[in-house]
Amino acid sequence: MRIALAQYNYHIGNFDFNTQKIIEGIKDAREKGADLVVFAELSVCGYPSGDFLEFNDYIEKCYKAIDEIASHCMGIAAIVGAPHRNSNPKGKPLYNAAFFLQEGQIRQIYLKGLLPNYDIFDEYRYFESATEFKSLEFKGKRIALTICEDLWNLYDNPLYTINPMDELAKEGIDFMINIAASPFAWDHGGERKNMLSQNTRRYKIPMFYVNQVGTQTELIFDGGSMVINQHGEIVHEMKSFSEDFSIISLEEAFTKRGDIPSSEIDSDRKATNIYSALVLGIQDYFRKMGFEKAILGLSGGIDSAVTMVIAADALGAENVTGVLLPGPFSSDHSVKDAEDLAKNLGSPYHTINISDTNLAFEKNLKPFFQDLPFDITEENIQSRTRAIYLMALSNKFGYILLNTSNKSEAAVGYGTLYGDMCGGLSVLGDVYKTEVFELAKYINKNKEVIPANTIVKPPSAELRPDQKDSDSLPEYDILDRVLFQYIECRKGPDELIKMGFEKSLIDRILKLVNTSEYKRYQTPPILRVSSKAFGMGRKMPIAAKYLG
Amino acid sequence: MRIALAQYNYHIGNFDFNTQKIIEGIKDAREKGADLVVFAELSVCGYPSGDFLEFNDYIEKCYKAIDEIASHCMGIAAIVGAPHRNSNPKGKPLYNAAFFLQEGQIRQIYLKGLLPNYDIFDEYRYFESATEFKSLEFKGKRIALTICEDLWNLYDNPLYTINPMDELAKEGIDFMINIAASPFAWDHGGERKNMLSQNTRRYKIPMFYVNQVGTQTELIFDGGSMVINQHGEIVHEMKSFSEDFSIISLEEAFTKRGDIPSSEIDSDRKATNIYSALVLGIQDYFRKMGFEKAILGLSGGIDSAVTMVIAADALGAENVTGVLLPGPFSSDHSVKDAEDLAKNLGSPYHTINISDTNLAFEKNLKPFFQDLPFDITEENIQSRTRAIYLMALSNKFGYILLNTSNKSEAAVGYGTLYGDMCGGLSVLGDVYKTEVFELAKYINKNKEVIPANTIVKPPSAELRPDQKDSDSLPEYDILDRVLFQYIECRKGPDELIKMGFEKSLIDRILKLVNTSEYKRYQTPPILRVSSKAFGMGRKMPIAAKYLG
Repeated sequence: MRIALAQYNYHIGNFDFNTQKIIEGIKDAREKGADLVVFAELSVCGYPSGDFLEFNDYIEKCYKAIDEIASHCMGIAAIVGAPHRNSNPKGKPLYNAAFFLQEGQIRQIYLKGLLPNYDIFDEYRYFESATEFKSLEFKGKRIALTICEDLWNLYDNPLYTINPMDELAKEGIDFMINIAASPFAWDHGGERKNMLSQNTRRYKIPMFYVNQVGTQTELIFDGGSMVINQHGEIVHEMKSFSEDFSIISLEEAFTKRGDIPSSEIDSDRKATNIYSALVLGIQDYFRKMGFEKAILGLSGGIDSAVTMVIAADALGAENVTGVLLPGPFSSDHSVKDAEDLAKNLGSPYHTINISDTNLAFEKNLKPFFQDLPFDITEENIQSRTRAIYLMALSNKFGYILLNTSNKSEAAVGYGTLYGDMCGGLSVLGDVYKTEVFELAKYINKNKEVIPANTIVKPPSAELRPDQKDSDSLPEYDILDRVLFQYIECRKGPDELIKMGFEKSLIDRILKLVNTSEYKRYQTPPILRVSSKAFGMGRKMPIAAKYLG
Repeated sequence: MRIALAQYNYHIGNFDFNTQKIIEGIKDAREKGADLVVFAELSVCGYPSGDFLEFNDYIEKCYKAIDEIASHCMGIAAIVGAPHRNSNPKGKPLYNAAFFLQEGQIRQIYLKGLLPNYDIFDEYRYFESATEFKSLEFKGKRIALTICEDLWNLYDNPLYTINPMDELAKEGIDFMINIAASPFAWDHGGERKNMLSQNTRRYKIPMFYVNQVGTQTELIFDGGSMVINQHGEIVHEMKSFSEDFSIISLEEAFTKRGDIPSSEIDSDRKATNIYSALVLGIQDYFRKMGFEKAILGLSGGIDSAVTMVIAADALGAENVTGVLLPGPFSSDHSVKDAEDLAKNLGSPYHTINISDTNLAFEKNLKPFFQDLPFDITEENIQSRTRAIYLMALSNKFGYILLNTSNKSEAAVGYGTLYGDMCGGLSVLGDVYKTEVFELAKYINKNKEVIPANTIVKPPSAELRPDQKDSDSLPEYDILDRVLFQYIECRKGPDELIKMGFEKSLIDRILKLVNTSEYKRYQTPPILRVSSKAFGMGRKMPIAAKYLG
């Protein structure tokens, strides 16, 4: 038996596009002699579809698409993912389902049992959890077809009370197929492989695994579909960060050998993977929104430099315009560093001095401010004036403005709402400042794309004379270590102090994080590359008073 | 038996504040001769606590608070709400629980069975659903204690597969207690009363119901706690939109008579209730954030006028500053209407003409824009310039900027990101334009607070010569009817056309709504007054392509 794995990029709600893509995949697989072609979780409508799933019309369109897809399954079988109505009047109205299509018909429907409902996942919002599981028979083989999370309940501390694969295994299974929509996080790839490998070793049968690829706004699906043999060894691994298509026979799955994945995080590949994920993140967001060109403010600092390099890689250097916006406190080197970067990339750049506009604001505010001292207000005016110029160019010429804030700044609220926090998409909002430096090093590995001075100079917002980030914030290497423990690991103050951090430092940082929720509420979508990004996967109340 | 209902306003994560408040309530109840005092759902930590529930430290603080509260339960029993750890290694780590405290001890813990996970609710994110239910014995009476949603599974099309009250009823119950955190929506109050009343009629016993009151950022909890007799009649109803405290005996609950609530929506009270909810919404947000003063832009239009009146009611007229920001296309009447409003309220107001700042932007952009025609870009510059002035005053003097956008505009994206879409809190973002007019009428019921001209003139953004909203949008009475069906009722295009709307109109409006997600993503928190507000209760993908 020959099985095709179709690792495709779907567009949420774009039924014509997804259906056509799936039908092409079926034709391709048949031409190449496959018996069965497998597509990802919720491939028909795209994942995550959000509250569109609450519209009858949306579900009807899913069924209509499945009928059309099924009509192309002649001489080949296919597995596609789509929502399925719950016929029991009790419980949520839908299931997250996999449709097995054969000879023009829906032959069988598998319902997902384990519904992730944490971090960026909220499947209980829409779906009922299945409690009965039935295997599939195809060409004399018995297949355990499962959906993504269904295989993720092997740990000592299980999140769910049932284990679908344990039920299916009772039926005497020949091999497993799992269809997934598993998003990228830099420390998740190893964990995913390890979990899938554990499953094949536990049930002593091979597995065919098909993941989505592509960006759905903030979520980056990295693909990396694979075939694992009954010994837990990866015998075939598909591309990361791009579409791919493979045909593997069941015989190969049983007989080929490979490596058992390590559960360790490959830290060497961290910067490479984050970089590739962000390139795909920008590229696919622009494509799905119907845009081609980006604009961003170039300060001469490392955040805007790294953002611009990634954007140039994603969209083409000629499609990324840098704008230098020197103000009353900008240093000469900032302008030069920014120009050098644009020249190195071969990207267009413009310069607009904001000083006169800034003065116009200050003049009109003078009757109100009188002789009150310069404070954060005047800093914010500069930042917001820049945003108006960037948005004006963006509006007039149809660019998307890229936001250049990093995760450390976003965490402690070191940024101006409606100023440097503007943008259609945040590229580095899930990348700590120390990781931005790692990305810069990776970018400059072979040649100096980012000017050395941008990397070595002390970070500064340049909104008052001789300002440095370290005037207001702890040094980034300490700050980022605390932030990682608080945000990613959810360590509380006592636990952090036990780890050796000073109480005053912890109190200061946690207060900054918790009292900045109101700012983060209004930030652009952030490309998610970690296991805990700001945005849809981290839900914090604003008007709270906890550790702040 | 005398039962005290403590309808209080809790502050999320503020354990000292909540604990103190609960202890005061216990003392008060005991002094007044109550045997039992009942507090709302998750009263110890506040509802909704969001991802703070993922911190061990947060849960530890809950237990510590409960111990302290229990130590005050001498000669009186109390029921408080708090998370409780799941001792089973399988499943989610917490339960949403009610603690029955007596003689200094935790006597019994009830676990919530039905966890709402739709609209603004996401309890499955944190909590495991209980499947076994046990009643409480107190002073010779058997009590069915349940938590909020546990009673909401009586419909023909039940959302859940279990019904906790059916299980509890088997134990021979004398009366019910339900503790809740049930947020306000203008069309929800009748439904809530009706559901509670149905429960008392089904089980033929009375119910004591305690709801939270107060605002948790966007969510407005309206209180309205009540006692219902075994005939489904409301025999005691507590205040809406403010704290309250009542003691009712079990004898009264059985013998007093009242009215069975109607399931119809009291449309007369719609404007009154929305108005009161928004007053509480502003008041409590400011209090919990530690602010006293608000600022807002006054355009002379109806949205800013209604916002200012509500804010003045919430914070005191002297604490709300209106800023007139006339620009190149502002009409004389706009300035006069805005001034008249501020004078009618007795609120401070300032005027800043934005024309010269606007010119400074246009001059610096001239080299890029050349002779390109005036378009949305120049409109946005005006709106964003205003935002800079408002934010500068807000930053310098410690005001919160109130956003004045209405739900119709927010729906179709008729607003400028980082311009009029700015603010710390959106007051009218869940109020359709036609409902804003209803609020204005309600405000002016007894005297002309809002200048008549503000109400009668055609809505305009005044960002280009002789502009009217109706140049770009359908008339609001038609627009709002379509929006209500699409947003609140989730009707798809075919269903809308069947209702009699024209296809071209539906296509146009649905496209505007769906392609504006990227703007709404970055709007301030919106005070929720309907059953489907933009924000946490409506999750839509941005880079999708459905009906747009």
